Amino acid sequence: MATLPNSLCLSPASDLIVKSPLFKSSSVGCFFPICSRSSVHLRCSSTGVEFNRNGFSGLSSRSSRGKIFASSAQIMDQSAIKTDSSAPTIVEVDLGDRSYPIYIGSGLLDQPEILQRHVHGKRVLIVTNDTVAPLYLDKVTEALTIGNPNVSVESVVLPDGEKYKDMDTLMKVFDKAIESRLDRRCTFVALGGGVIGDMCGYAAASFLRGVNFIQIPTTVMAQVDSSVGGKTGINHRLGKNLIGAFYQPQCVVVDTDTLNTLPDRELASGFAEVIKYGLIRDAEFFEWQEKNMPSLMARDPAALAYAIKRSCENKAEVVSLDEKESGLRATLNLGHTFGHAIETGFGYGQWLHGEAVAVGTVMAVNMSYRLGWIDDTIVSRVLAILKQAKLPTAPPESMTVEMFKSIMAVDKKVADGLLRLILLKGPLGNCVFTGDYDRKALDETLRSFCKS
Amino acid sequence: MATLPNSLCLSPASDLIVKSPLFKSSSVGCFFPICSRSSVHLRCSSTGVEFNRNGFSGLSSRSSRGKIFASSAQIMDQSAIKTDSSAPTIVEVDLGDRSYPIYIGSGLLDQPEILQRHVHGKRVLIVTNDTVAPLYLDKVTEALTIGNPNVSVESVVLPDGEKYKDMDTLMKVFDKAIESRLDRRCTFVALGGGVIGDMCGYAAASFLRGVNFIQIPTTVMAQVDSSVGGKTGINHRLGKNLIGAFYQPQCVVVDTDTLNTLPDRELASGFAEVIKYGLIRDAEFFEWQEKNMPSLMARDPAALAYAIKRSCENKAEVVSLDEKESGLRATLNLGHTFGHAIETGFGYGQWLHGEAVAVGTVMAVNMSYRLGWIDDTIVSRVLAILKQAKLPTAPPESMTVEMFKSIMAVDKKVADGLLRLILLKGPLGNCVFTGDYDRKALDETLRSFCKS
Repeated sequence: MATLPNSLCLSPASDLIVKSPLFKSSSVGCFFPICSRSSVHLRCSSTGVEFNRNGFSGLSSRSSRGKIFASSAQIMDQSAIKTDSSAPTIVEVDLGDRSYPIYIGSGLLDQPEILQRHVHGKRVLIVTNDTVAPLYLDKVTEALTIGNPNVSVESVVLPDGEKYKDMDTLMKVFDKAIESRLDRRCTFVALGGGVIGDMCGYAAASFLRGVNFIQIPTTVMAQVDSSVGGKTGINHRLGKNLIGAFYQPQCVVVDTDTLNTLPDRELASGFAEVIKYGLIRDAEFFEWQEKNMPSLMARDPAALAYAIKRSCENKAEVVSLDEKESGLRATLNLGHTFGHAIETGFGYGQWLHGEAVAVGTVMAVNMSYRLGWIDDTIVSRVLAILKQAKLPTAPPESMTVEMFKSIMAVDKKVADGLLRLILLKGPLGNCVFTGDYDRKALDETLRSFCKS
Repeated sequence: MATLPNSLCLSPASDLIVKSPLFKSSSVGCFFPICSRSSVHLRCSSTGVEFNRNGFSGLSSRSSRGKIFASSAQIMDQSAIKTDSSAPTIVEVDLGDRSYPIYIGSGLLDQPEILQRHVHGKRVLIVTNDTVAPLYLDKVTEALTIGNPNVSVESVVLPDGEKYKDMDTLMKVFDKAIESRLDRRCTFVALGGGVIGDMCGYAAASFLRGVNFIQIPTTVMAQVDSSVGGKTGINHRLGKNLIGAFYQPQCVVVDTDTLNTLPDRELASGFAEVIKYGLIRDAEFFEWQEKNMPSLMARDPAALAYAIKRSCENKAEVVSLDEKESGLRATLNLGHTFGHAIETGFGYGQWLHGEAVAVGTVMAVNMSYRLGWIDDTIVSRVLAILKQAKLPTAPPESMTVEMFKSIMAVDKKVADGLLRLILLKGPLGNCVFTGDYDRKALDETLRSFCKS
């Protein structure tokens, strides 16, 4: 690939952390700051952003020893991961005065001081669902109140499932908060998976125009992705996550022990997002996953802890650079535009989010290949790893080309009528966010995955 | 009154503008920056903030010639007010990268360039109601599109009234936006009174996690108060404005000609907020109102333009100092805690907001007098000016002490169970925001205004 004008090169790791204000002024994200020879490249055009960790011009390769850093934490070898309950790993999300820590470790809910140091005020509302409440509500209540008699805890237990991620269910949170006479100094705690985190976060953003909140994610999906970065919201019958807010928590507490009770299907669903990080920006992590997927599926604690930590580091880095999704952050949505269409069209909750994202990833990879942007080894490696994770690789038979098109037209990444997509381009670990692609490739992709 | 420790003195007008970051770190608002001998004083305690333009210690007086400035605009004498449609008056709301202008003048909707320069993207959604739409929807649509063929305008017409300021009605805005396939580059335009502005603003804050919006207020209430400062939201059946967001518009366009179609009762309702600015921070403006209320009630254009401009300047100054209501901004809620209780208890929409605020102001003033914080001349002047404005001065007969107490308990100004109130203290133009008052005075006030 030719040398690119207007490219941004971020030095690897801690040498240079580019702060989010760089990205704020543009809705596409064109930025031209200091460059250095290095391993992260962004390229801008009027229709999108190219993103690349390994270099467009072959300057570095998949064998690069460069490592990803979150703003404060260095990735350790898997062998170095500790599950010692006394010392959580901390990944910092660097957002100026809205920065916060992600605590990752085993037994964190047995360490009340972690949660208690982030509670504001004397009143707490735990938002959870009827699956998680019997398992962890008492434990979290105790962690919040033990040795802390001035704090009182209320809870609201919502029905479990994506199909309840709607305004009617959200109103139950407001009802409970108002009936309990909570005031602006209270703290909301999200205890559950991605649906609970998104709803509780949006409720916290909106209740009295904003109160504090804490995320305690209990699924892989929430621990590696949805609890980090402040995207909150609910679905509309016509589309996923169309109503919401960017609203950051005080902290995220990932107690990996909560995965002990997670059903296999939910576990695998989360791995779709883990795989995503490898594909869009971290080839080394993808290669690690190829070797370690059997350990992950077998719930090996060290493997899980490593996958969660490295995922959070990737997410934290991207969010710190582009909190409000001016450009770069959109790359975290690889597979999501197709996936959201499946979730919306097939019926919320019929498939788990990660299952739909897995198929969406296959479709995005297929389209990238049709465009000539990646070679076929990537296509087959993606199919292979998703199959290892027992994730689906084709949409439900009832999905038609027209359903995909009609639902994707309301995607948040549409700009002035143009659907922008995250597609892979170049060697493994490189992607673009762009509306500049041959429409035929999209049509052909949809037709190849749909019977009608 | 003795000299106060820990007091903040802001120099008058443009000598010193204190920026909002000073106020962000505290939920009550204790600040100890540079002081100068001057006319705005703040005093902090653990329970509240005292606010004062004229000096606690008699350093200055009501006869002070000091004038109020917004961040960029100086108050002119009434005689100097122009209603020339070619030159709007501009009051700037100074909020860093979220700063925006308030345009005030006659015939502004006939100047398309004002609106068009603040539209982002090619799609606009006008949110209005079934009273305002027949009057101004076509005019605003034309102002947005004339000479601007690339912009397309959709509209959603909501039922008129406070009782529709709820989640069900808000969903109609989302439905329309999503069905129209609006994307993140669209602009929402609020065309109407306070209810429309609050709902459209909250919809803009939440749609796709935030899109641009513009306020075109068409009532005195909205022009002098609710369209400025970014408070958006909806009511809950248990309380006013309990669900919402702080979300600033791109601009506010106050075309004073829209008041020509405003019913008398709505006109008077807005004057309750105008009177408020005088009482809490601008004695000179209150004195002007005492002399000019007949002109205002007679809709004298110059008097209205002056009242709107000076109100916006007061509001802009307060919002610039304390956007998220850490302390100072709460003083804009004089009379609102009692007033909201009336609106909620008596039924949303039975009384207009300003009517409830008028009674709430009388109650707050009564309580201030019971506490010995003001002399009886202020009590009688407040009653007199409200009567001139044909506003009510006593709550509906059906309101009981228990109703007031129960509804006020969910007020947003409650902190850790303590109800903080805005009360007058000292000479005219001085107020406090405090939870540090004799509970007996509150009980006596409620009993004196309720039959049971």
